[in-house]
Amino acid sequence: MKALAVTGIRSEYDILQPILSALKKTANFDVMLVVTGAHLSATFGETVHEIEKDGFSIVDRIETLLDSNRKSSRVKGLGFALMGLVQTVERVKPDVLLVVGDREEAMATALVGAYCDIPVAHIAGGDRVVGNVDDQVRHAVSRLAHIHYVTNSESGERLIKMGEQPFRVINVGTPGIDRFMSEPHLSIAEVNQQLGLNLPEHSPYLMLLQHVISSEAEQGYWQMQQTLKAVQQLALPTVVIYPNSDAGGREMIRCIEDYAPQGFFVAMKNIPRTPFVNLLRHTACLIGNSSAGIMEAPALHLPVINVGNRQQGRLHSSNVQFVAHDVSLIVEAIKRAVYDESYRQYVAACATPYGDGQAAAKIVTHLQQQQLDHHWLIKDITY
Amino acid sequence: MKALAVTGIRSEYDILQPILSALKKTANFDVMLVVTGAHLSATFGETVHEIEKDGFSIVDRIETLLDSNRKSSRVKGLGFALMGLVQTVERVKPDVLLVVGDREEAMATALVGAYCDIPVAHIAGGDRVVGNVDDQVRHAVSRLAHIHYVTNSESGERLIKMGEQPFRVINVGTPGIDRFMSEPHLSIAEVNQQLGLNLPEHSPYLMLLQHVISSEAEQGYWQMQQTLKAVQQLALPTVVIYPNSDAGGREMIRCIEDYAPQGFFVAMKNIPRTPFVNLLRHTACLIGNSSAGIMEAPALHLPVINVGNRQQGRLHSSNVQFVAHDVSLIVEAIKRAVYDESYRQYVAACATPYGDGQAAAKIVTHLQQQQLDHHWLIKDITY
Amino acid sequence: MKALAVTGIRSEYDILQPILSALKKTANFDVMLVVTGAHLSATFGETVHEIEKDGFSIVDRIETLLDSNRKSSRVKGLGFALMGLVQTVERVKPDVLLVVGDREEAMATALVGAYCDIPVAHIAGGDRVVGNVDDQVRHAVSRLAHIHYVTNSESGERLIKMGEQPFRVINVGTPGIDRFMSEPHLSIAEVNQQLGLNLPEHSPYLMLLQHVISSEAEQGYWQMQQTLKAVQQLALPTVVIYPNSDAGGREMIRCIEDYAPQGFFVAMKNIPRTPFVNLLRHTACLIGNSSAGIMEAPALHLPVINVGNRQQGRLHSSNVQFVAHDVSLIVEAIKRAVYDESYRQYVAACATPYGDGQAAAKIVTHLQQQQLDHHWLIKDITY
Amino acid sequence: MKALAVTGIRSEYDILQPILSALKKTANFDVMLVVTGAHLSATFGETVHEIEKDGFSIVDRIETLLDSNRKSSRVKGLGFALMGLVQTVERVKPDVLLVVGDREEAMATALVGAYCDIPVAHIAGGDRVVGNVDDQVRHAVSRLAHIHYVTNSESGERLIKMGEQPFRVINVGTPGIDRFMSEPHLSIAEVNQQLGLNLPEHSPYLMLLQHVISSEAEQGYWQMQQTLKAVQQLALPTVVIYPNSDAGGREMIRCIEDYAPQGFFVAMKNIPRTPFVNLLRHTACLIGNSSAGIMEAPALHLPVINVGNRQQGRLHSSNVQFVAHDVSLIVEAIKRAVYDESYRQYVAACATPYGDGQAAAKIVTHLQQQQLDHHWLIKDITY
Repeated sequence: MKALAVTGIRSEYDILQPILSALKKTANFDVMLVVTGAHLSATFGETVHEIEKDGFSIVDRIETLLDSNRKSSRVKGLGFALMGLVQTVERVKPDVLLVVGDREEAMATALVGAYCDIPVAHIAGGDRVVGNVDDQVRHAVSRLAHIHYVTNSESGERLIKMGEQPFRVINVGTPGIDRFMSEPHLSIAEVNQQLGLNLPEHSPYLMLLQHVISSEAEQGYWQMQQTLKAVQQLALPTVVIYPNSDAGGREMIRCIEDYAPQGFFVAMKNIPRTPFVNLLRHTACLIGNSSAGIMEAPALHLPVINVGNRQQGRLHSSNVQFVAHDVSLIVEAIKRAVYDESYRQYVAACATPYGDGQAAAKIVTHLQQQQLDHHWLIKDITY
Repeated sequence: MKALAVTGIRSEYDILQPILSALKKTANFDVMLVVTGAHLSATFGETVHEIEKDGFSIVDRIETLLDSNRKSSRVKGLGFALMGLVQTVERVKPDVLLVVGDREEAMATALVGAYCDIPVAHIAGGDRVVGNVDDQVRHAVSRLAHIHYVTNSESGERLIKMGEQPFRVINVGTPGIDRFMSEPHLSIAEVNQQLGLNLPEHSPYLMLLQHVISSEAEQGYWQMQQTLKAVQQLALPTVVIYPNSDAGGREMIRCIEDYAPQGFFVAMKNIPRTPFVNLLRHTACLIGNSSAGIMEAPALHLPVINVGNRQQGRLHSSNVQFVAHDVSLIVEAIKRAVYDESYRQYVAACATPYGDGQAAAKIVTHLQQQQLDHHWLIKDITY
Repeated sequence: MKALAVTGIRSEYDILQPILSALKKTANFDVMLVVTGAHLSATFGETVHEIEKDGFSIVDRIETLLDSNRKSSRVKGLGFALMGLVQTVERVKPDVLLVVGDREEAMATALVGAYCDIPVAHIAGGDRVVGNVDDQVRHAVSRLAHIHYVTNSESGERLIKMGEQPFRVINVGTPGIDRFMSEPHLSIAEVNQQLGLNLPEHSPYLMLLQHVISSEAEQGYWQMQQTLKAVQQLALPTVVIYPNSDAGGREMIRCIEDYAPQGFFVAMKNIPRTPFVNLLRHTACLIGNSSAGIMEAPALHLPVINVGNRQQGRLHSSNVQFVAHDVSLIVEAIKRAVYDESYRQYVAACATPYGDGQAAAKIVTHLQQQQLDHHWLIKDITY
Repeated sequence: MKALAVTGIRSEYDILQPILSALKKTANFDVMLVVTGAHLSATFGETVHEIEKDGFSIVDRIETLLDSNRKSSRVKGLGFALMGLVQTVERVKPDVLLVVGDREEAMATALVGAYCDIPVAHIAGGDRVVGNVDDQVRHAVSRLAHIHYVTNSESGERLIKMGEQPFRVINVGTPGIDRFMSEPHLSIAEVNQQLGLNLPEHSPYLMLLQHVISSEAEQGYWQMQQTLKAVQQLALPTVVIYPNSDAGGREMIRCIEDYAPQGFFVAMKNIPRTPFVNLLRHTACLIGNSSAGIMEAPALHLPVINVGNRQQGRLHSSNVQFVAHDVSLIVEAIKRAVYDESYRQYVAACATPYGDGQAAAKIVTHLQQQQLDHHWLIKDITY
């Protein structure tokens, strides 16, 4: 069975990677990958080279990311992705398409599968994150996709309520946690060496990873500024990771670059997976609005401060404090997360609603047992 | 308020046209049109010229239809539509986008609106037609669109069940019926003259309009053949209209062209609106699987024989007989529709579930009263 | 060495095919093919299937032909070709690109090669055919391409005059003649059987193959009509072959289809290569404006009537009569070609300015001996 | 007469602008502009906003610049440009297309004009700059374009040698000089104030503007480094301007950003036209490889040090010293240009081979007198 996965950005690839690894080890699967979007961008670090190191068969590289801050550029990029992906699919004739999440490549893949009669397995559908076009896109992708590997029970139930046929919905947890579990362990000293950092071994440091919401794109600079000001007050060693390539992301980057000369944090464009996971394992808390704080952090029992509206309303564990873009509120939440022992014990006992690190195995086992015929291809809504 | 409508095929334009006419007459609306898809195709009669006659401002012509029978060509066309439409939208900066149905242009318009923060008013969402990629696309478009002008109560309720916010769902009936009501009346003699036909004034004639389902694309020739053989047995004057440009449509056309020389029907590529409506007003019954049989025919109390799986499961009135692709079943159904007086009286009393011919007026009134701000733009699913 | 050829239409593929065959038999060449344009079109007979039978490795199928009569559609198709071909080239990383002639795929290939630093071998540059955009395109392609395999000395000299470096210009004759020489011989009876025809074995029949010029696109119907009327007067068995997919081509097709019912000719959409060559071997004369009349016909000593401006001014042998779109002039020229014995003897002695049927061998030998390095890649004009 | 100009980058717009201004003031011209490429890029300063201030009617904004360092991205961008520009041309139906130079937008415009039968006036054809794909593209554009407004006699003669019909070739000089002549004069103090600089009023300062050659793309960092090291030795105030968006340009930018913290120069992304011209008026010399050094600098009698192969072999005046990428050679040349009085007097007497600042007026006068009919549209090569 030929499985063709599509990836456009590193956060997404981190979820795909354990699935592709598991599929590749399975006798009857031929795993192929299309690399697109930010992976091919100079600005975002040409992460295609990381993928190449993983050794998967890259069957096409499709450039889609315009050098632009305009909203329109996402739609144009989606157009390029459709044209390119159809060419790939015509050639390699996959038996199943795999894609994650709610970005342009998810939509492109789902449309290609639906129109070309190729079953689409969609990972992480059914989530609900208000206030972002990605939310609409995620739900639309679910309408087009044929198999839904959801990352939590709440999302699975939502898809069934939406009228998706129950046999299509399989809760496997998030594959992102598989990754975290399986990454080799590094000491702080080793992380420092690999990344050229100087983080302390016996005292706390912070991590900051914050993205923009499309509906608040014009506030990107200001939002990042509030968080940086809060971090500055803490006066702890801090690692800031560059945001995504969404509209407004560039404004956040400009803010980071404006503050960087003051020296109270280190900014990194792109951190390889292993040191990234180990940075999270050792950090005192994660600040920003990355989905890692919601999904993977509980498995590390890591305190998270989620700033602003992104991730609001998502299923989460008791490790997350939600705060507004307000310097003093952010400061207070970080202090609690880093210094309040009783709070840290409370977080240490948090539940893990996004799975047990076996998502990839569950997906492979399920996929292996299916005949991907008309039963899967002809969709109906249940009412 | 600048309203930009997008149309790709004649059947869709027939629904848009009364809305655009009504909007144009309304003081504060500036109506613009993008023409794409089959409207620009030589094979399908360059129906753009009909639109030009209606006098709307055509702000771009975007070619998207490949000369191809491959499934992939629909996705490529969607890619072209996205690239082209984004260019238009960047220039004209519409306040609202209008689109009908479940074809590529509906998806393209909904994606452009969602990503570029322009409210999308989608006409005829919420319908359910199993067995066709268009069904998945229609539901996905509903997830992306901001205002749902549905054509019947069943569809409206389905959208709300799917989690669409109730304030977004407005049942206006189908604008297609507005059109039928307002078309000038022609006698058979006048129709004959305009189309160069020779239909009888005082005895019954048949109409046939049959499309292909994407999941049954390879049966296109055979399906058309069954219906033509049935028609041949009836030995009544018959008008056959060419099918859509979907994959497989060309096979149906080939079948029509193979049988045409036998002379038992007249095949027409493209009939202007007025004689088309009047053909339906005078015909003894409509055969095939056109949505006109389900939606507009009840308002004419016209008997319809729906052949095969297309339109199966849709809300319909008591004017429709559903039959399989079986010559003798089709023959029998036609005989009943044409000659069985008690059946014809039963049809004459049928309900009109798709509205009262005031859809366009209702849409304009509703649109006029809205502030299309964040309230409309930020979507949430209701659970 | 990986050689990637690009083909978009059958006439062009007929020239490429002997080269690809010869390359494939050569030890150090890996031959790959991109199929695009009319080859993938239903209207023009999906000639991709003929190519598949030849057994070359088709590394991508790129749809570019819009269902359209607009001039703009050629440019759009060129845009699609560029986007698709770049994706292919990124993946297969060819050492040399091969392309023929003056159509959109020639331009697309030359641009991809020039911008991506891959040497482009262009076949049949330097010709001069006034009055057609293809002429400008052919010369522009020569400016972009790195190796010029010309089909005749006149064209080679023209390229050198234009400032192309002489070492880049190699006169090999046209590979089309290789093809003619190597095709198996069929009797009329065998041709009849293969094509379902009924041509006479011992009396003359005619062949007609006529294309449109872009600058005269709107005269397509009328031009074809003049030739058909002339053919009708001759009252000889006649085989008419459908024209190309150029703008206006569809009008010529409509003309053919309008006259077909009168039965004085047989129209064929697409004739396989072997019977096509044998049809030419046996016919009394070829009418129209096909390049076959100019280039390959001299090797068969076949009388040709070239109608209209296409092919005007090209290097030609004494087998060609040039006539205007005038029924009586065409009739007269055909009569001379078919019945005037002294004229037929004159044609039997004509020269063969387009080569000796060894073009493919010469190209392969030349290509084999080159190091395709900076010497070839960095172009300079000679003045 | 509707004139549609296409611009993709600031250097090119500087040449177009005086022509568009002059056309706009002419009674029977309607001037329209398509803005594309780097003008819409965040990285390159969204220069579209400068164009907006000039008040021309922008009829479409077409994003084409990918966020990429790959060679392939230029071809893809050309594909996008073709698709977008054809849509514009279909709508506005220009009578003539105007474009400058040798970049992707020049090729796109020439192809659209050639295929759609719209005369293309190409500015600055016939130049010869070896070692760059742009050279091949410029000559190919000349083959497609219908009117050649050349900037110097040498280029005009080259086009005629290439076989262009002499009536199509008009030497007007470069419109860039029109611009320089007409820009308001600013003092150093005013320039300092507008740009936030601190340049000396009574002692020399340097300017550096250096681009990459596509064939030497991988040497971008090193090339910029040599020049910066030389500048460092001079210890004069220096303004460095960011290079173009060509492949490799980003590496040059990285080099600039690496050296910027040392403080021996000020780097500027994008300088408005008026202060830019005045910077050149006051500077002691211009270093790098900008075409401004070759074309406009003679009119200012400004010493230029041209580093490396770019601009090699172009017609130039006696104000230019050509040096290799060698620190000590560059240092020596700068010293001569700044401190050697006899050399400075020699430069002060240089000729101006690129015109007298009346190019725009000449173009408008010529264009006004033409009937752009078949005479112009049907091209022929002269041999």
